Amino acid sequence: MDTKLEEPKIEGKKKEGKKNKDKKDKKKGEKDGPKGDQKAKVKVVKGARDFLPFQMAIRNKAFKIITDVFKKHGAVEIDTPVFELKETLMGKYGEDSKLIYDLNDQGGELLSLRYDLTVPFARFMAVNNLPSIKRFHIGKVYRRDNPQMSRGRYREFYQCDFDIAGPNYGKMIPEADVLKVVVEILTQLPVGGFNIKLNHRLLLDAIVNISGIKDDLYKTVCSSVDKLDKEEWDTVKKELLEKGITEDQSEKLWNFVQLKDKPKTLLEKLKLNNDLLSNQKGKTALDEMDILFDYLEIMEIDKYCTFDLSLARGLDYYTGLIYETVLTDTDKVGSISGGGRFDNLVGMFSGKQIPAVGVSIGIERIFNILEEKYKNSPDIRSVETEVFVAVIGKNLTKERFKVLNELWESGINAEMLYNENPRMDKQMDYVINNKIPFMVFIGENELKENKLKIKCMANGNEVMVERGKLVEEVKKLKENPELLKVEKK
Amino acid sequence: MDTKLEEPKIEGKKKEGKKNKDKKDKKKGEKDGPKGDQKAKVKVVKGARDFLPFQMAIRNKAFKIITDVFKKHGAVEIDTPVFELKETLMGKYGEDSKLIYDLNDQGGELLSLRYDLTVPFARFMAVNNLPSIKRFHIGKVYRRDNPQMSRGRYREFYQCDFDIAGPNYGKMIPEADVLKVVVEILTQLPVGGFNIKLNHRLLLDAIVNISGIKDDLYKTVCSSVDKLDKEEWDTVKKELLEKGITEDQSEKLWNFVQLKDKPKTLLEKLKLNNDLLSNQKGKTALDEMDILFDYLEIMEIDKYCTFDLSLARGLDYYTGLIYETVLTDTDKVGSISGGGRFDNLVGMFSGKQIPAVGVSIGIERIFNILEEKYKNSPDIRSVETEVFVAVIGKNLTKERFKVLNELWESGINAEMLYNENPRMDKQMDYVINNKIPFMVFIGENELKENKLKIKCMANGNEVMVERGKLVEEVKKLKENPELLKVEKK
Repeated sequence: MDTKLEEPKIEGKKKEGKKNKDKKDKKKGEKDGPKGDQKAKVKVVKGARDFLPFQMAIRNKAFKIITDVFKKHGAVEIDTPVFELKETLMGKYGEDSKLIYDLNDQGGELLSLRYDLTVPFARFMAVNNLPSIKRFHIGKVYRRDNPQMSRGRYREFYQCDFDIAGPNYGKMIPEADVLKVVVEILTQLPVGGFNIKLNHRLLLDAIVNISGIKDDLYKTVCSSVDKLDKEEWDTVKKELLEKGITEDQSEKLWNFVQLKDKPKTLLEKLKLNNDLLSNQKGKTALDEMDILFDYLEIMEIDKYCTFDLSLARGLDYYTGLIYETVLTDTDKVGSISGGGRFDNLVGMFSGKQIPAVGVSIGIERIFNILEEKYKNSPDIRSVETEVFVAVIGKNLTKERFKVLNELWESGINAEMLYNENPRMDKQMDYVINNKIPFMVFIGENELKENKLKIKCMANGNEVMVERGKLVEEVKKLKENPELLKVEKK
Repeated sequence: MDTKLEEPKIEGKKKEGKKNKDKKDKKKGEKDGPKGDQKAKVKVVKGARDFLPFQMAIRNKAFKIITDVFKKHGAVEIDTPVFELKETLMGKYGEDSKLIYDLNDQGGELLSLRYDLTVPFARFMAVNNLPSIKRFHIGKVYRRDNPQMSRGRYREFYQCDFDIAGPNYGKMIPEADVLKVVVEILTQLPVGGFNIKLNHRLLLDAIVNISGIKDDLYKTVCSSVDKLDKEEWDTVKKELLEKGITEDQSEKLWNFVQLKDKPKTLLEKLKLNNDLLSNQKGKTALDEMDILFDYLEIMEIDKYCTFDLSLARGLDYYTGLIYETVLTDTDKVGSISGGGRFDNLVGMFSGKQIPAVGVSIGIERIFNILEEKYKNSPDIRSVETEVFVAVIGKNLTKERFKVLNELWESGINAEMLYNENPRMDKQMDYVINNKIPFMVFIGENELKENKLKIKCMANGNEVMVERGKLVEEVKKLKENPELLKVEKK
């Protein structure tokens, strides 16, 4: 699946080549090595990002929510290589094919980095000769697009795909399941309100046809119509007229594509339109929407959906229902999920027609929102240490290893500072900064008495325990959830 | 970190180019599309692999074990992009640099796929200006090596890296922690016996020096010595003589590199060697080993280790302790983990010297072992569905969605077949093949009586419940662990 792209731009080779040599143009985070110009320039690849520990903890939290919903609906997980044969990807992405990263020809096969997870999925079905599957796949994909990091648009980014493929399935049954998955994920991720736009490729076919526009203009007309979520009709109309549409055709088109409403409300209206009903594709689309909307109502997710005749989506491979989700509480991000039915893609590889429908969640935009949200929250910890082993006095490293080893062998997350004789303030800083709930102190006195001191960071309480009772006591303390959550001071 | 490579070979460009065109040379899993030669060849990229659902479940199980140990020792997780600037990777891998995948120059920066996770880690420290970190990173790396899939050697493969970086740490304290991590992981993964070989770069320096070999031959001598785990001394000696070592030098070298024993046993022996003690590097290495072996003994992991003077490891960046793990119950795989201290690598990027030590677990070889082990085990499920909603009779899809929706909303993993009117035998097959523990039946009779039938697949028991009590009853059944484990018939 694909989340919609905005105005893809490729930088000119010359321009960027020059930039690379221009030392004055140093970006934030770039460094020269110790020997200055002689050393490699040090930076993250343009449009890509590092994940720091805090960001990684957020990412894992989001993936867990998403994965759990996928599994709740019975999906299995798969993975494919990051690269495919160049010819596997060729001719699947329309105009956006120019955004594909190719590998250098170093002998052997010609390879490209995957552009999405959908084409690799179709190739996977063919190569592994699978007749049907309900699978999810979370992986990075690559687009030589113009990055806009603040809007969550990267050249390397994650997609979380859920697809159902198989023959002879009941009409709109997998579609309803996919939409339920989207709603479950977006209500569990704290992203605020969202709206799922629904449309049908056959309905778009019918509308173009009814408007008197020739079939060979279908793709380019859809691509203009798709801009109606950001552009005024006048702008889009101007573009359409330039593409050779007549004034009359554009008016007929506008009568349809301006329509958006609650699913059943708009459907009832369209069912009164004889042009649509007498168009075979139009009739099929309306019948399918009728079935779908009942299922959405039963699962109480129709309230998240809008039937929107201006939704077209860019990619070539859609054949039935299409959908796209936008967040309604922020205008900082574009679409965060999209998908639809693609009945012919698997067949392009295997020769066997295997109908499929699915959705892709574009998680980077969600990461940005979550990072902001959890910035100061005690709920996200990048270190999961439960016990910090501190030392008072010198040359007690062997004792620390003894204590640590006991804790590790009992399955308790524990660590110490690696200095030979760490200062107490450094040890305290580490514990506080990492919200570690318990400290164990080793000192000369404790050793003499064969005891250890445990401190609970949540309330400051200290207990002395017999050396042999340490693990037992820590396990008891861990049972109290209030002691595990430490606010960062 | 790097796990050792065996005889890297690059295929000739011409040879492979020809092969690509040779339709007779079709591999298993390759397919022509429906239009024969006109269509794209369909295959997985050479040396890469798909993960099928069962393999993915195994992979996740292994990653969970590894990740939990990393976290147990207080490590944070990070991620970096799959590609780096070409110049970031250049000059870090010695002879193996020719195995790096370069991206095509499509305008913009010149990029390469990462070859390991260690150089990106050093770049990460520099760009993000971090003074210290204990981090783990699980990610795919890329090598244009000659693949040997049966031995777990791929061109795209996972590495699981754990590294500790920071200044002023106590001697051998982080090293001991890293080795404990390796032992914990390999005793928890069911891979059988293993042996961690230990050596020290400064000791190798001293040995080469004591043998009267010039410093500029150090690298090439080490590369020959490193082969002693697979080759006889005579073969290695022949190679050394060809490299310009004298008979006398090779004999002196052999006196050292043939030595391997329990850590403290060999150490005590070496401490009697005046040549080593009077060599500054030799003395430093022995002192450090002395400290380390005490820590290993305290944590009771010395029994997994061998002090082996023939271990050299290929990469340029090691500066202190080095280690490598081999499995002892199988000869099918080579080394499955390796690492050591690399004090200068981060400084190559940041200009600030940040000492570091770490290990890389080469997980593909372990996957192969686990796949074999779990092939028929009921413990690994690729589908995590708890309840299958089955239908008896026709046109009850809306009823199925109603029931499913209730289960989903209560956090229960549930699914159905997507056919409009699925046959009972197909539904049963699905449940049995996927070891789903519970079935809920919807039929005309059940609907009339406002009841549902639940069947426990583990023991065949059936219960009728009031329609409104479904979730409650399923939750009660789920509490019995014996009902959750279903043997595949």
